[in-house]
Amino acid sequence: MQSSDTAVAAAATAAAEVSAADVRAAYQRIRAAIRRTPVLESTQINVESGAAARGARLYFKCENLQEIGAFKARGAANAIWTLAPEALRAGVVTHSSGNHGTAVAWAARQRGVSARVVMPRNSSAAKQAAVRRYGGEVLLCESTLAAREAMAAEVVATTGAVFIHPYDDARVIAGQGTIMLELLEQLPEVDCVLLPVGGGGLASGVAVAAKALRPQMHVIGVEPAGADDANRSFHSGVLSGVSHPQTMADGLRASLSARTFALIRRYVDDVVTVQEETLVPAMRSLWINLHVLVEVSSAVPYAALLERRLQLRQAHVAVILTGGNVDLDALPWAQPQR
Amino acid sequence: MQSSDTAVAAAATAAAEVSAADVRAAYQRIRAAIRRTPVLESTQINVESGAAARGARLYFKCENLQEIGAFKARGAANAIWTLAPEALRAGVVTHSSGNHGTAVAWAARQRGVSARVVMPRNSSAAKQAAVRRYGGEVLLCESTLAAREAMAAEVVATTGAVFIHPYDDARVIAGQGTIMLELLEQLPEVDCVLLPVGGGGLASGVAVAAKALRPQMHVIGVEPAGADDANRSFHSGVLSGVSHPQTMADGLRASLSARTFALIRRYVDDVVTVQEETLVPAMRSLWINLHVLVEVSSAVPYAALLERRLQLRQAHVAVILTGGNVDLDALPWAQPQR
Repeated sequence: MQSSDTAVAAAATAAAEVSAADVRAAYQRIRAAIRRTPVLESTQINVESGAAARGARLYFKCENLQEIGAFKARGAANAIWTLAPEALRAGVVTHSSGNHGTAVAWAARQRGVSARVVMPRNSSAAKQAAVRRYGGEVLLCESTLAAREAMAAEVVATTGAVFIHPYDDARVIAGQGTIMLELLEQLPEVDCVLLPVGGGGLASGVAVAAKALRPQMHVIGVEPAGADDANRSFHSGVLSGVSHPQTMADGLRASLSARTFALIRRYVDDVVTVQEETLVPAMRSLWINLHVLVEVSSAVPYAALLERRLQLRQAHVAVILTGGNVDLDALPWAQPQR
Repeated sequence: MQSSDTAVAAAATAAAEVSAADVRAAYQRIRAAIRRTPVLESTQINVESGAAARGARLYFKCENLQEIGAFKARGAANAIWTLAPEALRAGVVTHSSGNHGTAVAWAARQRGVSARVVMPRNSSAAKQAAVRRYGGEVLLCESTLAAREAMAAEVVATTGAVFIHPYDDARVIAGQGTIMLELLEQLPEVDCVLLPVGGGGLASGVAVAAKALRPQMHVIGVEPAGADDANRSFHSGVLSGVSHPQTMADGLRASLSARTFALIRRYVDDVVTVQEETLVPAMRSLWINLHVLVEVSSAVPYAALLERRLQLRQAHVAVILTGGNVDLDALPWAQPQR
């Protein structure tokens, strides 16, 4: 957790810390390694969401179809590839209970350096296996943020590994922003982007690129009501975290940092919340109609459309599907057979 | 069922009935309406399948990401768009318990004509809903092939609707073959294609195009052992059906027609079978590693790789993922919560 003094100081300069030029440079750096993910559309979803009724169309940017199943590959790759080989001699380290850990392991292996990922002891076996599959070393710790940060700091101190934060890092943010550049190549008519907000790295990067390239583009962040720190911070103008997030959208339990808060306040048009009850129906509809796996966290923006939370006027609305790593034995609409 | 005399006569001419030129013409006809589906790859699948160990790579042509969730959109569109408007005045009719019915409804609506789909009374509510979603009229019948054919014939006789067979139709076969043209544009280095075989429309169309454009390309069909008519017919040289197919791969229970048998004998390099037990592990691995929904039938070629059934020497092996319409409440590894 950042102290409030640090937060204020950081906020003052953060907005200038990530520019569209940084995102462009990131795209040049990583585009050969990351996947150009497809953009899908569905007649049924256009109808169900109300888009068709107002003559609009919804498009889904499928970052869940990245090799590692999540957009996080972009930020991790940019962060690691920005570093000089001599800085990477001791490898990299991060803490994550989700896709960022896998992304760091994957990106480090592309670069030929070692990766350590601090994960809570209660993180799923599947998530731990994913990190190991890409050659990452899993270090288990207690399941508190303090324990994770402490263990990662210890690794940095004892090994000299470089720490790659999941979102509070300008290089990570610029990497996530490359989604917007790619989307504009694929869908030049896009005039609105919806995305989920957790720690704010994705929202920050995408909004920086969007506003530089298409000032009239709307960028809207969506959060579960049970982890609504970005919504409250955005509307109050005062950064405030959520200490006990209550949502099944496990990828969105993090709180904004001073850096992502400043970028979101400056570049994002709105942040709204959705009810927990809409997440599973939204997720299920995306599976059935797009035929892709989508995590609960990724269904959050579509849930806002199902709840009719947004009074959109734009005709070409893109939704970023952030991840598709799910436990097939614990789907929210079924029980395991055992 | 075709009588054996008819079958012999048809076989004699069928091989000449679908040419690479037909497939090219089909592609020009339908390419604006169908989706250019992505080609995905997975490091883990390359390892697990044994491809990586021999320096080869696997690519998945995601026809499960067509709007209707199946490659059948191609054949149905080509069949319907080949017809003159005056021939379509009374609409089209087909019988199907699966994706072909949805495809015909979808394609007919694109063309502004009516579609009737004869479906067995015990077909899933989801499949029936999919037909209706695209404006198709569902006609329920008893769950025998004879009942389906009789009802479809009656619709033709009483209404003048045009019958669109799921696979025993040169226009449908040419439409399915467009997958190969698209794949060659996306992956010019492809030198082997694996696909599931049911009635043989996909295998026929793809093989015709492959052998015309890349004579050295290998095309291999895969069947579940419990519905192995194509395997037996291919190797014996005598067309023989399976009267009681035993497989959970519901899209592959059909038997070859004389037409598809002749085309497959001429253009396909081999037809192999896989054990029923491998289908679910194969399906699950595709879900987890590619992050897309895949029907059991679509997992059949990958099951052959997991079983080490194929002694492939090719370096760039494409697998056609044919469909992604699954009942999320009846996944083969879970039970519904009710």
